[in-house]
Amino acid sequence: MPVFDSRSFRNHENVVFCSDEATGLKAIIAVHSTALGPATGGTRFWDYAAIHRRSAPIDVAETRGEQDAVYDVLRLSRGMSFKNAMAGLRLGGGKSVIIGNPRELGTPELMRAFGRMINRLGGNYYAAEDVGTSPDMLAAASETTAYVCGLDGGDFGTGDPSPHTALGVFTGIQASVKHRLGKDDLNGVRVAVQGLGHVGQYLVDHLRNAGAKVIVTDIVDANIKAVLERGEAEVVSPDEIHAVDCDVYAPCALGGTLNPKTLGDIKATIIAGAANNQLETEGKEDEQLRKRGILYAPDYVINAGGIISVESEVYKEKVDNAAREAKVLRIGETLTKIYEASDKQGRPTGVIANEMAEDIIRKANEAKLAAAAE
Amino acid sequence: MPVFDSRSFRNHENVVFCSDEATGLKAIIAVHSTALGPATGGTRFWDYAAIHRRSAPIDVAETRGEQDAVYDVLRLSRGMSFKNAMAGLRLGGGKSVIIGNPRELGTPELMRAFGRMINRLGGNYYAAEDVGTSPDMLAAASETTAYVCGLDGGDFGTGDPSPHTALGVFTGIQASVKHRLGKDDLNGVRVAVQGLGHVGQYLVDHLRNAGAKVIVTDIVDANIKAVLERGEAEVVSPDEIHAVDCDVYAPCALGGTLNPKTLGDIKATIIAGAANNQLETEGKEDEQLRKRGILYAPDYVINAGGIISVESEVYKEKVDNAAREAKVLRIGETLTKIYEASDKQGRPTGVIANEMAEDIIRKANEAKLAAAAE
Repeated sequence: MPVFDSRSFRNHENVVFCSDEATGLKAIIAVHSTALGPATGGTRFWDYAAIHRRSAPIDVAETRGEQDAVYDVLRLSRGMSFKNAMAGLRLGGGKSVIIGNPRELGTPELMRAFGRMINRLGGNYYAAEDVGTSPDMLAAASETTAYVCGLDGGDFGTGDPSPHTALGVFTGIQASVKHRLGKDDLNGVRVAVQGLGHVGQYLVDHLRNAGAKVIVTDIVDANIKAVLERGEAEVVSPDEIHAVDCDVYAPCALGGTLNPKTLGDIKATIIAGAANNQLETEGKEDEQLRKRGILYAPDYVINAGGIISVESEVYKEKVDNAAREAKVLRIGETLTKIYEASDKQGRPTGVIANEMAEDIIRKANEAKLAAAAE
Repeated sequence: MPVFDSRSFRNHENVVFCSDEATGLKAIIAVHSTALGPATGGTRFWDYAAIHRRSAPIDVAETRGEQDAVYDVLRLSRGMSFKNAMAGLRLGGGKSVIIGNPRELGTPELMRAFGRMINRLGGNYYAAEDVGTSPDMLAAASETTAYVCGLDGGDFGTGDPSPHTALGVFTGIQASVKHRLGKDDLNGVRVAVQGLGHVGQYLVDHLRNAGAKVIVTDIVDANIKAVLERGEAEVVSPDEIHAVDCDVYAPCALGGTLNPKTLGDIKATIIAGAANNQLETEGKEDEQLRKRGILYAPDYVINAGGIISVESEVYKEKVDNAAREAKVLRIGETLTKIYEASDKQGRPTGVIANEMAEDIIRKANEAKLAAAAE
């Protein structure tokens, strides 16, 4: 797959292939845009070739795996630009992938080599945790570069991002309920929460406190138990959750939950959850939902609480809890703007959000060029 | 074409795809190795898709052009690692390509955008002139980055590299004649010089001063005239030069002159010239030459005078003419070592040179790792 010519390239400022023979590191750092600030986004560690090894010879599998890695990092990096722009942050969009099985390859030596590669970009990219990378692994990378965020401790550490993500989703649900159901509170509103990880658990707490009825599921029993210990909840099986009778469906687990198979079963009139990449195909499922009168909160807008919480770390600023919370609570207003534009234009919310984000980035680029020309 | 999985990738530290929407910049910066110092190599500006547009639809041509650009930059970048290592320089190997027609795209704005991309690598890559880039274009890039070398003037400017390249080729011819013909001087030795650009003209001067008989050609009449004004020379047509009766054939024009079509015609027993990429296929033509008893001076070893001359610029050191000349004259000794190893092992000189270069780079990497571990 070509890079410039890839459909997902979309004017990335940089796509950096990195290798280190001594540790076996193969990584791609994608910097979509630095118009708003340093490109910030997580580091995914994934064996992209694994799925291809089942059906293809080893060398073909490796090549296909690399193609998937390029596609993944480009798509996610642009997604971070949009997310950071819509959250009103001084952060650009980037993402990185390390290719391989983290259990076999994810040594401190490899992470330090990766840190040196991040360092080479001189602060244009900041890494954070993502699928396949742990706090320990990022701490190892931080031995060779200062451009890592979401670390524990230190002068500017922002701690666990989950409560901030959950608060953002909660305020997003409030705004969605207000827009779609005309209700000012969540009293008696039925919310189905799919996935009870850190974010899901904090979200359930907020919902209960606001008087909502929660329906929950998880593939891990201990997570369900933890939620039941703290209050009431209706429990359903993981393959039923999207189809339960409720007002709000909140996907908070893996991505791709909104696809041709699940779409017809949804009874909720609002979809608003923390999961990344909820739509299987951007501009497709969101349009189908719109036509069916289901309000969809664009995932990267509603789940921005986590990245909002680390912004201060990139800028080496002391955490200001009040300012941070205010930014997280603004997610509701942003969603309302998207919903109003979607209603007015008769176009899907996901597309509207992308256009708003592109507009913010374009204006920042123009301002930068104008400043440079002076 | 994949990047990591490309046959020419060979453990490049970085391959950086860069784009700038405002100026239309599409560039690839390849950093093969920084083991010995900053990766240093020229910036090529070339419309890689042009040749494909004749036979393929526009989008296919663009994709194929990008593949060619990736292949070109990776091959050239590794070549610079080898060249700089064999010249004993404190420079690693890198190269960059800007994709497109320089006459249409090569504006100062684009070169400044390219300079910002070079700058992003924080001194891990230094650019210089190459096919398609002019001193003016590099001067524009140098407005946005300090990591450009081969500039005119300034405190550390090293000026025209051609005389140094020519001196290196001359000393290489001397060493080759000594090794193959057992002669300590060039008195009466017949040398065929293909291409009379700056380097070729300086080389002819050296050869004449040493008593050699020169046979010359060029596709530009003015160049031949300039050479004849300064002394005697036998002139032949460009398509005859490789086949003339002589001791030394010195290709000093375009690459690829040693290929299946020309190889059988060569009457010289030594091939030693300034052109880049003289072999169409590494490890193939040099082996055929060896079997026929023709001594081949690996192109990147004998033509290193130019890069030797700019080393001080990268390190911001005042030019030391004596030290620089001593380094250039060492090219002869390096070639002698290659020739002796080739004779002893019965393997082609090009392969021997590559292995020596790889060995130097590997040792430097090990030393770096050992130093980092302390």
